[in-house]
Amino acid sequence: MAVQINQDRLWQSLMEMGKFGATPLGGVGRLALSDEDKQARDLFVEWCREADMTVRIDQMGNIIARREGTDPEAAPVMTGSHLDSQPLGGKFDGAYGVMAGLEVVRAMNDANIVTRAPIEVVNWTDEEGCRFVSGTMGSGVFVGVDDLEKSLVDPDPSGVTVGEELARIGYAGSEPVGGYDIAAYFEAHIEQGPILEKEDIPVGVVVGAQARRNYNVNVIGDEGHAGTMPMDQRQDALLGAARMIEVINKVAFMYEPWPVITVGRLFVKPGSRNTIPGGCEFTIDSRHPNGDTLHQIGVTMEMACQKIADDSRLELEFVNVSNSVAVEFDQRCVQAVRDAATKIGVKQRDIYSGAGHDACNLALTTPTGMVFVPCKDGISHNEKEDARPSDLAAGCHVLAEAMLEMAS
Amino acid sequence: MAVQINQDRLWQSLMEMGKFGATPLGGVGRLALSDEDKQARDLFVEWCREADMTVRIDQMGNIIARREGTDPEAAPVMTGSHLDSQPLGGKFDGAYGVMAGLEVVRAMNDANIVTRAPIEVVNWTDEEGCRFVSGTMGSGVFVGVDDLEKSLVDPDPSGVTVGEELARIGYAGSEPVGGYDIAAYFEAHIEQGPILEKEDIPVGVVVGAQARRNYNVNVIGDEGHAGTMPMDQRQDALLGAARMIEVINKVAFMYEPWPVITVGRLFVKPGSRNTIPGGCEFTIDSRHPNGDTLHQIGVTMEMACQKIADDSRLELEFVNVSNSVAVEFDQRCVQAVRDAATKIGVKQRDIYSGAGHDACNLALTTPTGMVFVPCKDGISHNEKEDARPSDLAAGCHVLAEAMLEMAS
Repeated sequence: MAVQINQDRLWQSLMEMGKFGATPLGGVGRLALSDEDKQARDLFVEWCREADMTVRIDQMGNIIARREGTDPEAAPVMTGSHLDSQPLGGKFDGAYGVMAGLEVVRAMNDANIVTRAPIEVVNWTDEEGCRFVSGTMGSGVFVGVDDLEKSLVDPDPSGVTVGEELARIGYAGSEPVGGYDIAAYFEAHIEQGPILEKEDIPVGVVVGAQARRNYNVNVIGDEGHAGTMPMDQRQDALLGAARMIEVINKVAFMYEPWPVITVGRLFVKPGSRNTIPGGCEFTIDSRHPNGDTLHQIGVTMEMACQKIADDSRLELEFVNVSNSVAVEFDQRCVQAVRDAATKIGVKQRDIYSGAGHDACNLALTTPTGMVFVPCKDGISHNEKEDARPSDLAAGCHVLAEAMLEMAS
Repeated sequence: MAVQINQDRLWQSLMEMGKFGATPLGGVGRLALSDEDKQARDLFVEWCREADMTVRIDQMGNIIARREGTDPEAAPVMTGSHLDSQPLGGKFDGAYGVMAGLEVVRAMNDANIVTRAPIEVVNWTDEEGCRFVSGTMGSGVFVGVDDLEKSLVDPDPSGVTVGEELARIGYAGSEPVGGYDIAAYFEAHIEQGPILEKEDIPVGVVVGAQARRNYNVNVIGDEGHAGTMPMDQRQDALLGAARMIEVINKVAFMYEPWPVITVGRLFVKPGSRNTIPGGCEFTIDSRHPNGDTLHQIGVTMEMACQKIADDSRLELEFVNVSNSVAVEFDQRCVQAVRDAATKIGVKQRDIYSGAGHDACNLALTTPTGMVFVPCKDGISHNEKEDARPSDLAAGCHVLAEAMLEMAS
């Protein structure tokens, strides 16, 4: 019995999910543990139960839906992703992986396929990391790289914590987080980059993910009156930060292959039109396939920023706040994805992930693979994020075949 | 009967006022119409009544305390300033002018001095302009350059309006705003710049104020995923804004004498660590003694920013949101300040004001002059703002003599 992906059902499920936190330009703003996230979670749970799965919620709020296999002792084959989004994100980043997992189960049900190992479809809590302090939180606690108690007290900018929000939206579950064997983990995701679309290839076989280093930079100057302090006597923290942002961008072009380096968040203190900024804080997100190169890039950025600070009579705090090592996915899982694409006859290519994913956490403890599909113009973390129904279905079909292979 | 300024009483009054909104580093954060502003207003009203003045509150929340003269028909001689401050401001900016006015009346009471014209001491509503949209609001409505109804619906960033806050803190008065003749207006203020201190001169005779042009700049790029969008395909609005801030600073050094140009406020959209900024808004505050030169500076800045936007595939909105013309103070009032300094024997020099003041509004309809005193290191709009008791008393003495001259 061959598994048949229902392209329309997958697409309609994504469109239904896209209504929660829908933005005027067709994207979604569904911050982790917001009311919109709760609505998306509730519908996912409802759909899983309609597909005859049992649903459990763990203490991190991860939703794990399970379809039993014939061998009650077998470790499950798992897939999943996340339903939270960026403040102005798209309908596909994350939601596609969760809906693709659900579609795999629905398609197995349609074809009366019974697997040996159980199938689990997961919605991980707070992948995006743009509301609370750290991202890929649910999967991080699941595999043990993040701490449950610490994560639950992680605050958002208004001071409310993950634990408080989980309780508020009804997803502070009682199940332990992780702690059991997973036979294999697969995650389907839009590429969030331009490669597959440019080459007109519907399926990317993800072989690994870039290393990532995050920094918080604090530039300290001195406040002064905008109308009276002469230009050559100022210690303007924003002007210093502006020069640092420019030099950080230049650093990106000094390495081969290019890293990606982003200053995404910046706050000015005190933030008054007529006061010379006395302080300026900003973030740096840097990624490269080679961890050693990325470390060197960080050193270069810090030296360049320190020089600007010295020249401008500013103080600098340059703090490395988080690191993710480069990830190589499991050879057997990667091959299962390749074989699946070959079996169903869609074009494929190997590809590195530029973004971090829950799969990168799972890869630390579990044989893991990923399936990428193209997205329009390579755009993601943007309301304009878009993808073709046929590509999404092809990626889902590959996911199903790879999971069936590992669960049989 | 000579008027005798009580240096200790003036200093103690300033220190008492400085307790409302006191910050850890010795400054004040007393935003217009906040709870702290209400406390300062209440104490000012109490002290004015103790000094036998009648107090009225107008519909803009301006507090006008009046000491009658012998001629009930005579137009009052007025002094004043403001009790609101920057978010992290000092104890002297504004408060000195109000407390100096009160000390003039207290000293006249001590010496049983009776003037022909009435004396009025004013606390103007929202001089700083860092909470609501526009500054020097109370004096602007008083002289008719700002509109009462529009000012009352001016919102702060949280959406609450001036009118709502005036009502909440009990300063939505019933008196009409302005509309009567003022014989002369004087304002005492710290210099907020380094000149008087450097030259060791306690009294600056203010002959005028710089022109000022404010701009709001909006840089529009395109959001994208920080981990995947290659560096050469980005439309990073913050990177563009950083380059603009640098070039705006360069423009300041192209003109003689130098203008002062400040980017004090900046917001990044969406402001997520792992999203390439799709938008960036910032403010420009520019000032120069010559209005035509300042206009040309604005044109130069806009052209330079547009070039950066074009080169970086960004859109630019560059909007001139407010202008203040250069002010020349009234010859007779300026001379009265000079004569007062000569009479009491303190060193003086003529000086331009780099900052805007309520006096600049009053000058539009009323003979106006200002007295500057030095402040430590020229620093203002800063918690470290400081001034010497003896300089403050000297300035207050000059203020008293100039007012007595005009009120006799």
